[in-house]
Amino acid sequence: MTAFDFTFHIEASEERSRAGSFQTPHGVVETPAFMAVGTLGTVKALDPNELEAMGAQMILANAYHLHLRPGDALIRELGGLHSFMGWSGPILTDSGGFQVFSLASLRTVDEDGVDFRSHLDGSIRRFTAESVMQIERNLGADVIMQFDHVIPGQSDYDTARDASERSIRWLQRCERALARLASEDPLDRNQSLFPIVQGGIHEELRRGAVRAIVDGGEWNGFGIGGLSVGEAKPDMYRILEVVDDMLPTTRPRYLMGVGFPEDLVEGVKRGVDLFDCVAPTRMGRNGAAFTADGRVNIKRAEYRADTRPLDEECDCAACRRFTRAYIRHLFVADEILGHRLLSLHNVHFLVRLMRVARDRIRGGTFAGWSRDWLARYHSRPTISA
Amino acid sequence: MTAFDFTFHIEASEERSRAGSFQTPHGVVETPAFMAVGTLGTVKALDPNELEAMGAQMILANAYHLHLRPGDALIRELGGLHSFMGWSGPILTDSGGFQVFSLASLRTVDEDGVDFRSHLDGSIRRFTAESVMQIERNLGADVIMQFDHVIPGQSDYDTARDASERSIRWLQRCERALARLASEDPLDRNQSLFPIVQGGIHEELRRGAVRAIVDGGEWNGFGIGGLSVGEAKPDMYRILEVVDDMLPTTRPRYLMGVGFPEDLVEGVKRGVDLFDCVAPTRMGRNGAAFTADGRVNIKRAEYRADTRPLDEECDCAACRRFTRAYIRHLFVADEILGHRLLSLHNVHFLVRLMRVARDRIRGGTFAGWSRDWLARYHSRPTISA
Repeated sequence: MTAFDFTFHIEASEERSRAGSFQTPHGVVETPAFMAVGTLGTVKALDPNELEAMGAQMILANAYHLHLRPGDALIRELGGLHSFMGWSGPILTDSGGFQVFSLASLRTVDEDGVDFRSHLDGSIRRFTAESVMQIERNLGADVIMQFDHVIPGQSDYDTARDASERSIRWLQRCERALARLASEDPLDRNQSLFPIVQGGIHEELRRGAVRAIVDGGEWNGFGIGGLSVGEAKPDMYRILEVVDDMLPTTRPRYLMGVGFPEDLVEGVKRGVDLFDCVAPTRMGRNGAAFTADGRVNIKRAEYRADTRPLDEECDCAACRRFTRAYIRHLFVADEILGHRLLSLHNVHFLVRLMRVARDRIRGGTFAGWSRDWLARYHSRPTISA
Repeated sequence: MTAFDFTFHIEASEERSRAGSFQTPHGVVETPAFMAVGTLGTVKALDPNELEAMGAQMILANAYHLHLRPGDALIRELGGLHSFMGWSGPILTDSGGFQVFSLASLRTVDEDGVDFRSHLDGSIRRFTAESVMQIERNLGADVIMQFDHVIPGQSDYDTARDASERSIRWLQRCERALARLASEDPLDRNQSLFPIVQGGIHEELRRGAVRAIVDGGEWNGFGIGGLSVGEAKPDMYRILEVVDDMLPTTRPRYLMGVGFPEDLVEGVKRGVDLFDCVAPTRMGRNGAAFTADGRVNIKRAEYRADTRPLDEECDCAACRRFTRAYIRHLFVADEILGHRLLSLHNVHFLVRLMRVARDRIRGGTFAGWSRDWLARYHSRPTISA
């Protein structure tokens, strides 16, 4: 098959912020964009129809989870992840690096890879750059992330340096493994491997990582990992600016595992194009809703007879039809529809937030809009969950 | 406000079976029809959009559950159940008789009413004909069922006679209470009170109950209670024929709490127009799917790589998009979407089954069709859940 270009076209920019369109084999992703997380091949509580209706374009799935259950070989046998989960739009798979280091127990890292126990059945598994490329190839997502060595957010310099340098060596192995698989076992799929910039909160390590990655090959986009993992917010913003200064402007940047509404706006201000996070669905299942005025905990008694929608400015399917009083009742009674409606609302909130940010960048009014938006969002901490 | 007629127009009949249309203040119900059960004001795991899309017309909610949580007074304050749950179509509320006798503990029945403990918090509550009418009036459904004395399916003659006669006395009190509420506290709602024919599996009691009910007033429809509560299937069919012989043909008959696909077809054969049951959603959440060839338990290993839809003849949203392999994965991984898809499929299956039965009655081919349908449905017991 012919190679696919994964072009990224920047339509407008304002200071560090960019409005672009990223072409994938399964369609375009208009950036900045929030990618809903479908860890196990399903965005929790939602149906693909709902994601399409809210304008979600690219979604994320997870190699670690799908390898353990139902197995990447089965998914390949069934035609790949797009076919398996009934999603015809773009998909990105995370490599499982983060999960190996956060969910699994008894992990042992060596230069070749990681031994760990499955969080499901305790079985001993081994991930290497090569095995993860085989898994992500079996899944068949449009964008596949390299296997990386993930460390806690406040790790010291030496730990962060070791992990970052190892991640860069693993990136080279990922690239070679993918090329070998493509020649030995051709598939009718175009995939783009994204490197992941690591380096903790240490500017020098981040600069070194970007240099090594950029010098090491031609990439269609870049992941920024190891942020929003326990470090202070100012540290995250500072590192984003360092990385933004160093990365080529011509490719999309994906800030991994981030985040909350305010994080997305702060990220776009610092040149980020793609985001993902389980927060909207996880918080939704716990009863928290994003609104333009901050978070609402729908289980609180004050919403018992509240006939307003979750967010009066929202046009999602939940806000168009249901009151806070009803959704509160669903949560009190532990009804699945409650989980559905808040998950839907929260993902819609982030997808729409990025669409608005994009429009503002194209109109050259992002700086003022984002300042006002953040001020309003932070102005009512008393209603936070 | 002017009274509403709740007319029932029979468009066609074939032997005992009838195809009709039942007019309610919130729209028409084409019969025979399956009513999805929204006990707590939500059909479990489903969204009203999905019910509309599958052609569901009338849905059911429960006075006992809604009285306990969130409270019928709150629902009235919020504009009634239609407004509260975002459903603009017809609604029927069950009176809670069945729940008082099946869920609550420590119940004491006297001629005036029932004392019981809430299954939620153990609080002592009392239901009488009068209090239940107030509750159902607050909820504001189109059709409200009388408060009745429900007994186990195999109860002896004397127990069944006492309960049946008490239910008839309670019916008279329900009617008077409703008239009094309408004059003292007028609401902009037309509601129709349905009596419930009780009498266990004793033909003589059933005949006596129908006579007393029909002689006692003018009714827009009739509930048939106390079936599918533990008695043998032939007993249920026999009693249905006895009741069908006695009830006026000009009004809809609602067989309460029934049921499974085969029960619906057997009921239509015996003159029943309306059905409700939690089976499609409850079984759906447990992994069982109705198909034209019997039940499928989607969790079984044999569906691991099965790329067929749940039912190859089904046009529901789940069958149009997803494979058995994917839905099995969702169940194995305990994902909410699995519960959603099987609940959706099963409710759609029953709604569509009744639509097909209606078309067959109108075409005069119901007898042959139902015979073939039942033979096929029962022909593959080995794939049952």
